[in-house]
Amino acid sequence: MTNNDTIVALATPSGIGAIGVIRLSGPDALTICNTVFKGRDLSVQASHTIHFGTIRDGEVILDEVLVSLFIAPHSYTKENVVEISTHGSAYIIESIIKLFIRTGARAAKPGEFTLRAFLNGGMDLSQAEAVADLIASNSASSHLVAMQQMRGGFSSELKGLREQLIHFASMIELELDFGEEDVEFANRDQLRSLTLAIHAVLYRLISSFEQGNVMKNGVPVVIAGKPNVGKSTLLNALLNEERAIVSEFAGTTRDTIEDEMSINGVVFRFIDTAGIRETADVIEAQGVLRTREKMKQARLILYLFDSEQGIEEIEEQLAELALLGIPIVGIVNKSDLLAPAVMEVLKGLELIFISARDKVGIEELKVEVLRKVNLHRINNDDVIVSNIRHVEALKKTEEALDRVLYGLDNPVTSDFLAMDIKQALYYLGEITGAVTTDDLLENIFSKFCIGK
Amino acid sequence: MTNNDTIVALATPSGIGAIGVIRLSGPDALTICNTVFKGRDLSVQASHTIHFGTIRDGEVILDEVLVSLFIAPHSYTKENVVEISTHGSAYIIESIIKLFIRTGARAAKPGEFTLRAFLNGGMDLSQAEAVADLIASNSASSHLVAMQQMRGGFSSELKGLREQLIHFASMIELELDFGEEDVEFANRDQLRSLTLAIHAVLYRLISSFEQGNVMKNGVPVVIAGKPNVGKSTLLNALLNEERAIVSEFAGTTRDTIEDEMSINGVVFRFIDTAGIRETADVIEAQGVLRTREKMKQARLILYLFDSEQGIEEIEEQLAELALLGIPIVGIVNKSDLLAPAVMEVLKGLELIFISARDKVGIEELKVEVLRKVNLHRINNDDVIVSNIRHVEALKKTEEALDRVLYGLDNPVTSDFLAMDIKQALYYLGEITGAVTTDDLLENIFSKFCIGK
Repeated sequence: MTNNDTIVALATPSGIGAIGVIRLSGPDALTICNTVFKGRDLSVQASHTIHFGTIRDGEVILDEVLVSLFIAPHSYTKENVVEISTHGSAYIIESIIKLFIRTGARAAKPGEFTLRAFLNGGMDLSQAEAVADLIASNSASSHLVAMQQMRGGFSSELKGLREQLIHFASMIELELDFGEEDVEFANRDQLRSLTLAIHAVLYRLISSFEQGNVMKNGVPVVIAGKPNVGKSTLLNALLNEERAIVSEFAGTTRDTIEDEMSINGVVFRFIDTAGIRETADVIEAQGVLRTREKMKQARLILYLFDSEQGIEEIEEQLAELALLGIPIVGIVNKSDLLAPAVMEVLKGLELIFISARDKVGIEELKVEVLRKVNLHRINNDDVIVSNIRHVEALKKTEEALDRVLYGLDNPVTSDFLAMDIKQALYYLGEITGAVTTDDLLENIFSKFCIGK
Repeated sequence: MTNNDTIVALATPSGIGAIGVIRLSGPDALTICNTVFKGRDLSVQASHTIHFGTIRDGEVILDEVLVSLFIAPHSYTKENVVEISTHGSAYIIESIIKLFIRTGARAAKPGEFTLRAFLNGGMDLSQAEAVADLIASNSASSHLVAMQQMRGGFSSELKGLREQLIHFASMIELELDFGEEDVEFANRDQLRSLTLAIHAVLYRLISSFEQGNVMKNGVPVVIAGKPNVGKSTLLNALLNEERAIVSEFAGTTRDTIEDEMSINGVVFRFIDTAGIRETADVIEAQGVLRTREKMKQARLILYLFDSEQGIEEIEEQLAELALLGIPIVGIVNKSDLLAPAVMEVLKGLELIFISARDKVGIEELKVEVLRKVNLHRINNDDVIVSNIRHVEALKKTEEALDRVLYGLDNPVTSDFLAMDIKQALYYLGEITGAVTTDDLLENIFSKFCIGK
């Protein structure tokens, strides 16, 4: 699939800034820019060079700009790419984009530059998806999985496996060609070994998803407890300290997500427990059912007690919470008000003692949260799956390979074996984009921002 | 004044976008970037070239980037400048900026790159100020005045005048050196001609400010009239059509300014008339006083009548409004409900007939608004002053030159003449930055955005 048209979009965020970068990609990118650029003749310049000049709409100077040239195939999209660095005025940017459109470019669709990079062989599909993940990354851990995926660690592992499977698939196809003759080009023992080896890799990759998912999307944590026990105060105590670091560069955090915070580079995402709060005072009996419903999403529950709650009540609730099968951190708030004798007894219960208002015990709590969530330290080289589309495809590959193994151990004809191997190949190929459909591409790239 | 340190900032807006550009400027810009960049050795590359590689914090790959090099003095700041084009993730951008700071750069203050451009002779002060105006420009007219000022049309005119004045100042200084001797190095007739010539230029520049100011800041327009006469409907009818154009590129307009619109490239800024609205039904007597207070800011009043208001009432109000001395457009809304006989009479009153709800008559109204505001078409070469600081300095220059003229026509000693010429030079110099103080620079550049 080749693109005959040239696309244009603002590649930097809209809003107030010193500069904006407009990106053109396609066969006419240089010609279009050259038509309205006054400065050196861009058509005779080398790739990866920068040129100062003005962009003019007739007599009107729209801006003094820097133009960066990337000559095909030495560009992100593998096409001719021109990036125009303008002053960061919405008026100027809009005027220049409109001028380029009048001069022959077309407004790019979301993710269309990256789509072209994929279609032109610059990256595979999982790498393209990682570009979007990288842009959305907001913590050390989400950044790490996206970067690793973009750099192809995941893809190259899959590609190797897929190539070996393709070899067997073609051997078995060959057997089919010989029809009734009893030939066996594909060594069944080797195929079994390969299938088992792939199985092991798939298992490892699929298992990595739980970790990959929390690294990418954050660890879902529920803060629960009776009303007025200090849940919001605790959340603020936890958030405040981390906020301070981020606010060094004002405006870089997305302020609408009030309940995210990062501890040691891992994002924790707090689930609204409003529903739980209402039923908290009748948490016994059917209240637990509702709570359980909510808590299914959680990977950790911070359950807050009040210094006024009796020891027996606390023990009872901890016992009930344990039934949920989700890690729990029991916390006693306002612990400065505890009588020493009560404190002594409670200490036997593995509780964390804090005063959310005075920010006492918050650091200990964070350490406990990290310990309970128990994320492995991963290395730059560890292959982690963080994309739900990928894990679904991996699971379908696994199922197809299960059928292959069954076929090898049972009297199944070669054509069934071939079909199952092809299915496995299909699903593996969907991950890297060796196999694609228009719907799949549309679905993936429509979620990108414009300009990428 | 030279800068020994290297500054760093994000040059693109924060927020979600495909790419972000981080800018380093200073003697160590290349060295600092080279330390954390893995790719080609940046220290041996030519200016205006682009290099692909990774930015690494120890073992961790922070991003795959494109690095653009501008070797001193061939850069915006005239220092070594490195621009790093990263993926547009707030996390990545923050991490890389922090890494550069740990490697020896310092976070840039607002406008510090442009301040350095000024201090290093890359542009004069009025050009530097125009950079901020250009970024803030949101219409064809504000863009035009900023662009013209940034390209130095204004400065070069002032520079020429100032040089001639300096010549006379030094001649007169020379006379003073000869003390009692009755020498006259500075030809008084030539000085008078020059002073008058400068005076004429100053007059033209100062006169251009009214136009420059509305071109830059928009034309303040009050929409007034009784409650429920359809003021908001009219505003929406006016805004909607223009909005459609802008919204082609979602997010490029600053949505908080709900009451700005552009007609023929000129921005009209609508003043909230809530106060007027409340007193509108008792607009006679002291109500007019309050209205007048509000309307002092306006350059045009759109006064809305209802088809149900009597002819006499309309005539009376128009007569009262005329006393304000501000151009007025009388508008009859819901004019489709007017009886033909009434319509006939009203047609004698120079009113515009509209139906705001049905968007009838809106185009005619726009034409009338433009006609009443009467902005001259200006050419790319016309020199327009749009900065209040400049006009103040021009007025002070004018006053000093008045004293020079007085001195030439009266028996005033050379030392007084010399003092007045020096004052004129001082104020002219303040505009282009030939004369500066730390306070002045601080005042100007603190209003810039960070990264410019």
